[in-house]
Amino acid sequence: MLNVHLVPHTHDDVGWLKTVDQYFYGDRNDIQHAGVQYILDSVVDQLLKNPDRRFIYVETAFFYRWWKQQSSSMQQTVKKLVNEGRLEFVNGGWCMSDEATTHYSAVIDQMTMGLRFLNETFGPCGRPRVAWHIDPFGHAREHASMFAQMGYDGFFFGRLDYQDRARRRRDKEQELLWRASDSLTPPMADLFTGILPNGYNPPEGFCWDQSCDDPPIRDDPDLEDYNVDDVVRRFLAIANSQAIVYKTDHIIMTMGSDFQYENANLWYKNLDKLIHYVNALQANGSKVNVLYSTPSCYLQELHRANLTWALKMDDFFPYADDAHDFWTGYFTSRPALKRYERISNSNLQVTCNQLEVLSGPASRKGPFGEGDINLSLSEKAMAVAQHHDAVSGTEKQHVANDYARRLAHGWQRCQVFQASHVLLLNIAQPHPVFLSQFSVNVYNPLARPVTWPVRLPVNGTAYLVSDANGKSVDCQVSVLFSLKTENLCVHLPQFLRVTFDPDTGLLSSLSNLETKQTIKLTQNFYWLVYNASDGNNLQSDQPSGAYIFRPNSSTPFLISKTTSGVQEVRQWFAPWVSQVVRLYTDSKALELEWTVGPVPIDDDLGKEVITRLDTSIKTSQYFYTDSNGREMLQRKTDFRPTWNLRQSEPIAGNYYPINSRAFIKDDVDQLTVVTDRSQGGGSIHNGSLEIMLHRRLLYDDVRGVGEPLNETSNIFPKGLVVRGRLLLSLDRPPSAADAHRPLAQEVVLQPLLTFTDGDLHPNTQLEFSGLQAALPPAVHLLTLTQWDKDSVLLRLEHQFQSWESKLNSQPVTVNLQKLFSTLEVLGVSELNLSANQWKDEMTRFHWTPMTGTGHLNLFIRFYYISS
Amino acid sequence: MLNVHLVPHTHDDVGWLKTVDQYFYGDRNDIQHAGVQYILDSVVDQLLKNPDRRFIYVETAFFYRWWKQQSSSMQQTVKKLVNEGRLEFVNGGWCMSDEATTHYSAVIDQMTMGLRFLNETFGPCGRPRVAWHIDPFGHAREHASMFAQMGYDGFFFGRLDYQDRARRRRDKEQELLWRASDSLTPPMADLFTGILPNGYNPPEGFCWDQSCDDPPIRDDPDLEDYNVDDVVRRFLAIANSQAIVYKTDHIIMTMGSDFQYENANLWYKNLDKLIHYVNALQANGSKVNVLYSTPSCYLQELHRANLTWALKMDDFFPYADDAHDFWTGYFTSRPALKRYERISNSNLQVTCNQLEVLSGPASRKGPFGEGDINLSLSEKAMAVAQHHDAVSGTEKQHVANDYARRLAHGWQRCQVFQASHVLLLNIAQPHPVFLSQFSVNVYNPLARPVTWPVRLPVNGTAYLVSDANGKSVDCQVSVLFSLKTENLCVHLPQFLRVTFDPDTGLLSSLSNLETKQTIKLTQNFYWLVYNASDGNNLQSDQPSGAYIFRPNSSTPFLISKTTSGVQEVRQWFAPWVSQVVRLYTDSKALELEWTVGPVPIDDDLGKEVITRLDTSIKTSQYFYTDSNGREMLQRKTDFRPTWNLRQSEPIAGNYYPINSRAFIKDDVDQLTVVTDRSQGGGSIHNGSLEIMLHRRLLYDDVRGVGEPLNETSNIFPKGLVVRGRLLLSLDRPPSAADAHRPLAQEVVLQPLLTFTDGDLHPNTQLEFSGLQAALPPAVHLLTLTQWDKDSVLLRLEHQFQSWESKLNSQPVTVNLQKLFSTLEVLGVSELNLSANQWKDEMTRFHWTPMTGTGHLNLFIRFYYISS
Repeated sequence: MLNVHLVPHTHDDVGWLKTVDQYFYGDRNDIQHAGVQYILDSVVDQLLKNPDRRFIYVETAFFYRWWKQQSSSMQQTVKKLVNEGRLEFVNGGWCMSDEATTHYSAVIDQMTMGLRFLNETFGPCGRPRVAWHIDPFGHAREHASMFAQMGYDGFFFGRLDYQDRARRRRDKEQELLWRASDSLTPPMADLFTGILPNGYNPPEGFCWDQSCDDPPIRDDPDLEDYNVDDVVRRFLAIANSQAIVYKTDHIIMTMGSDFQYENANLWYKNLDKLIHYVNALQANGSKVNVLYSTPSCYLQELHRANLTWALKMDDFFPYADDAHDFWTGYFTSRPALKRYERISNSNLQVTCNQLEVLSGPASRKGPFGEGDINLSLSEKAMAVAQHHDAVSGTEKQHVANDYARRLAHGWQRCQVFQASHVLLLNIAQPHPVFLSQFSVNVYNPLARPVTWPVRLPVNGTAYLVSDANGKSVDCQVSVLFSLKTENLCVHLPQFLRVTFDPDTGLLSSLSNLETKQTIKLTQNFYWLVYNASDGNNLQSDQPSGAYIFRPNSSTPFLISKTTSGVQEVRQWFAPWVSQVVRLYTDSKALELEWTVGPVPIDDDLGKEVITRLDTSIKTSQYFYTDSNGREMLQRKTDFRPTWNLRQSEPIAGNYYPINSRAFIKDDVDQLTVVTDRSQGGGSIHNGSLEIMLHRRLLYDDVRGVGEPLNETSNIFPKGLVVRGRLLLSLDRPPSAADAHRPLAQEVVLQPLLTFTDGDLHPNTQLEFSGLQAALPPAVHLLTLTQWDKDSVLLRLEHQFQSWESKLNSQPVTVNLQKLFSTLEVLGVSELNLSANQWKDEMTRFHWTPMTGTGHLNLFIRFYYISS
Repeated sequence: MLNVHLVPHTHDDVGWLKTVDQYFYGDRNDIQHAGVQYILDSVVDQLLKNPDRRFIYVETAFFYRWWKQQSSSMQQTVKKLVNEGRLEFVNGGWCMSDEATTHYSAVIDQMTMGLRFLNETFGPCGRPRVAWHIDPFGHAREHASMFAQMGYDGFFFGRLDYQDRARRRRDKEQELLWRASDSLTPPMADLFTGILPNGYNPPEGFCWDQSCDDPPIRDDPDLEDYNVDDVVRRFLAIANSQAIVYKTDHIIMTMGSDFQYENANLWYKNLDKLIHYVNALQANGSKVNVLYSTPSCYLQELHRANLTWALKMDDFFPYADDAHDFWTGYFTSRPALKRYERISNSNLQVTCNQLEVLSGPASRKGPFGEGDINLSLSEKAMAVAQHHDAVSGTEKQHVANDYARRLAHGWQRCQVFQASHVLLLNIAQPHPVFLSQFSVNVYNPLARPVTWPVRLPVNGTAYLVSDANGKSVDCQVSVLFSLKTENLCVHLPQFLRVTFDPDTGLLSSLSNLETKQTIKLTQNFYWLVYNASDGNNLQSDQPSGAYIFRPNSSTPFLISKTTSGVQEVRQWFAPWVSQVVRLYTDSKALELEWTVGPVPIDDDLGKEVITRLDTSIKTSQYFYTDSNGREMLQRKTDFRPTWNLRQSEPIAGNYYPINSRAFIKDDVDQLTVVTDRSQGGGSIHNGSLEIMLHRRLLYDDVRGVGEPLNETSNIFPKGLVVRGRLLLSLDRPPSAADAHRPLAQEVVLQPLLTFTDGDLHPNTQLEFSGLQAALPPAVHLLTLTQWDKDSVLLRLEHQFQSWESKLNSQPVTVNLQKLFSTLEVLGVSELNLSANQWKDEMTRFHWTPMTGTGHLNLFIRFYYISS
């Protein structure tokens, strides 16, 4: 008997064409018809009408809002449905995060927030067993690893490379075992992964939502067009052809799509009939059985089948849905939003999480004084920003503005000091501080000392700066935005040296003075373009857009051969492309602060701006990018590990997401580039590494967003100007991680600066450390946040991959009792990664891979309970 | 306190852009999103959630289908809702009939069918108290008269002339008393009539259906854009400005529209909130009270106000929604469908209704033998054909085809004789009967003898025809569709004489030989055109379409000055316009059988074809048209009885619906034209009467149908050819009705011809009469139909208006005991017109008009019960 699991579901973006609030209430239906409050109303109603019916719900951001507005009797009804398995939560994070442009720390936070709500509201029956990323545009290995560590038994998604799918269909490998870490011991990061048959849509002809036009089942013989026989015949044909490309005698069909089930009756009424009429044929010998099901019921049947499953070690990037349709543009789309999301995360971790813990759960008094702490607003803003149409940059402009506004509100609410001027630094153009005397408080959120140049906007020309002991601090005042006079804080560097070509003004070499290594290094800026009237469009008329990157030509246009009209290390390439090159005395990294914009469109051509680093490093197609800021993955140009690639887009088809860093290396040299936000990039030529910085496009790429990615605003009416930093480090490959791991964490969690007018109170404590001592280099303080009145959530992370450092990839021991200066540990319990289950109660299905190898697990999580 | 009655409702066309079955099931949602089954599912669910909520339902054609599919427990639930007044039926006919193109007999039938179902299902609580014609495009006086006689307490509609509405708003006359007959004694045909404030839509900004984009009420202060204060402020402003133009401290708001409430939760959730927040302001002194209500609750409050109301005696035709947007095209649109609907009615009355009664309810044996009688299919087909987007001709082509197909199925199922050839006559082009010998059975459905030329298609050249007594019958064989030889059945006429102009071949005079009156009469054919590129479109670019008639110029184009190439009385005006003029020996009417089509469109111009009769009759702007085939209404060019008209369309703005006849007259002569279907017409010049015959248009008129009225088919790939008849009678005005009343009924109820092959069985009864004697001329047998096993429904109608005939406008007495030849009357009960209430139990609200006069009531209805 072939069992067909029908899974009624809705896919509710927490922002895309409309804002998350507009989606919830069903406002602005002129843009898109969607109202989540009504979906949940309607589904609950319909589930009550027939105990066989099932539904899954995914996005806790929406469910939480709806739940708050229900009567207690409705809440009891919903609990009953959850307890009986009729309403099942899957995924269950605050949102369905993007996988290409998110940092793992923010993803863990948003998952934790959603899962915590479900746990506290529904108990174990509300805990999702299945991760469900049906829409994200490619899939990161780190996401799979996190899902495994969160205790999920399986993972389902809908989008993968069209060639990959074809191969997997042929070989019945659409269901597989993903070994998602090369450091964690299997099966710790093993995740059963299922690729859904129709993306996340119903099979063709069987969409019965109000948004669909497929014929309903017309079973009244008195009416015209009785069609039961036809519907059943079509359904059996689809089920049987689907069964051919999967391994077991169970198959799954997703019966729903974007914002469907607003009027669930339409779906269920027809599904009831479908099940009835198809199963009725069993009396005549039919071997097909249809049932209402959920992903976890389906997964249970797959597990029960006790087969072996193909093993997958790499990830699912880049995603292409056709030969010239690579979804690699969104790796860079909306670079300003991507950066704002990243510094907002840093701010959240510091001001909302760490400082609340350190200021004490009881009084909120202490060295930092009384604060107006509102965790939830900032956390929620960050959580929705992880959505796959948020930080991805694939939302409409007004929605991008809404995400930014939410983050800004979050910042305001997280201010610990009433008169803090911290916000002054959060805007693109520096504002001078109009004060003759002020104090600067610098809080370092990392669990070890950092060297960090503090740059402040001021309006005077000379300042005296002294530290907590009254000792004078070295300082310089720079005049910004002036071509004529520069007075830069350029120190004599201790660790690096950089040379410039005297003819072109471009970088020419980079040296590590410690390791005595030097590479030739040329850097320049280029743009790529999709030109609709280009004769090269015969193969496809797919333009670049928010999602898609598709230049006409594989040769990018050079913006300038030389950096004319610049002094020393400030480089001007064009009126809209400039860069400041900085080397700080104590830094092991070269800072390239780029400024791009407004990208000119007078020629009616949208442009995608990259910077390319060309080096003497001898690579042969290989390069490396990170997965969500954590593990590094090897990439190879024009190659995919699990299928025989036919490359159709030589640039876009070789771009991968970069969340925190990328590197190229040979036997002796490794050049690592640390980014300050998610970007796309690749190594198109050997020895070369290119990173896309900014995109301004004049066409929509026809993937739904419905507007070109052409960012302007009141402040930037002629086009958005974006500024960012790349940090370059040159190292010997075996020890390169010892440099880039802490460097990247410093960019992710930045020191917090706060200000006080005039003189400080004489009793003010000028220095404070929350830790008794620095953590060992291998251990990163990922999360420190108040959980409830009496407990805090602590996440400590071993940040080195098993293979990347002789020194730091080893196991380490941390004494929790001696960790904090202001907290006494009364008890500790270990939880899963998402903190919604005790670690020792976490039991997951075991799956047998076709082959298997293992690694160390050093990612530990703790849970402090002070009775 | 101002009371705002919110009336949740849905407007469900029984066919328009989709067929009635497609609308019911929600099929073809690509054309229009609409599924009535889901509307009723959803509304019942939502009514159960809050006992304050109300809903009205209108179209029994849909409700009946839905009801059949419900479980008995759901049926009990719905009964409870009806009994508690939470679900209220209004109007309640099978459909919401068109008012301009329907004949009263078919309207009464469809109302009776719907109301009967409600009566039998729900008893008195299911009987509608309010008529509800929110969408029809203008309103007929006869409809109001029928509604009054059906026992309705009030009538609400949405569309009226924009100038009329402006005047009534100013004078607070949007609620009025319609005195809907000049023959029935008031208040017998008095009907309280309310004009709804927003058509049938909600006020602007308050549409919360899934099909709308208005902002929902966002009352969670945690979300962006909390808008309760704004919504309440806007609502109060609208309510107060609406109250200014109505008389009482109660106002009504229709909260719904086309096919809305498919997901009723969206509406009710927001209406609940609206009521809550608006009424909450009463604590702060607000004087506005909002409540869920129904039209009958609202009507009760108006009645309780005990005011006097403006009196209206004329009708609401033509309807214009702007200066150049007269909805007078649909009076003629789809002339073939309009005719097919009319002869289908005749067929239904005869074969399904009268013959079933006469053949006997017990055995169905008798003179007509065994029959395959299926009432309901034919009745339902006729009932939905009355819909305001059915016979009106304002549906899409595929829907028009569907109505025709339903009617055809109805014909098939109504065939009494298995081997009947009756269908042969129902098609436009005659088919020969390939039989050397056959019998013809002629059944006359009128309750008095008629003279009727029997024309049969045959393929022989000579036939012997004998009557029931074996006596030879005068006969001629005509060759059709030949220019060369004509052998027409033109007899030496006894009553009329017509002359033709020898130069032009056109009609030149008409004489009544009995009354010795002669008028000059010229007739020709013309076309009008809307030319998009005409310079005359500066005022408006409204084109003619299915609804709208808008020629560029007031001067119609003459098709031909002469009727060249014709013989005698067969006239050829153009390759696509011809006419046969016939005078039968025994007839008092001149027959003009016109054939129009395919209307040429090679010049890219759509055309609207009229025939115009120009006479020597001295009229001064007045002419007369009927109302739904019953009473005659006086019309005056460029004039409206109840407001000071500013005429903006000299032709379209003077067109009125003609359902059965129109006439012009002066002191001595009255020329009456009896039509065979509904058509539009007017008297643009004195002495002239023009009738629109056919319309072929190349533009959509932007009233929703979304396709041009350009009828083609497999049979007519180059454009539809339509044939029809006009019957002209010339009389002295005081006695003209004595001729045109029976003449028009003969066209409405035609003799039924059936055939038998070869020799008849020797025992065959060759003659039969269902009546013992003919009814008096004033009395028309309107309905004779089997009601249930033991009773028949009989409707007898006094067909003369009180003023139109010295002879026949007097009261008459009919002896029911001696009426029928095969039925013995065991008991009689009188009912209201729609047969859903005993006449003596019919109590209606009394309303006080501002002025009042009265007339006779002779429209009687009987209900036979043979215990």
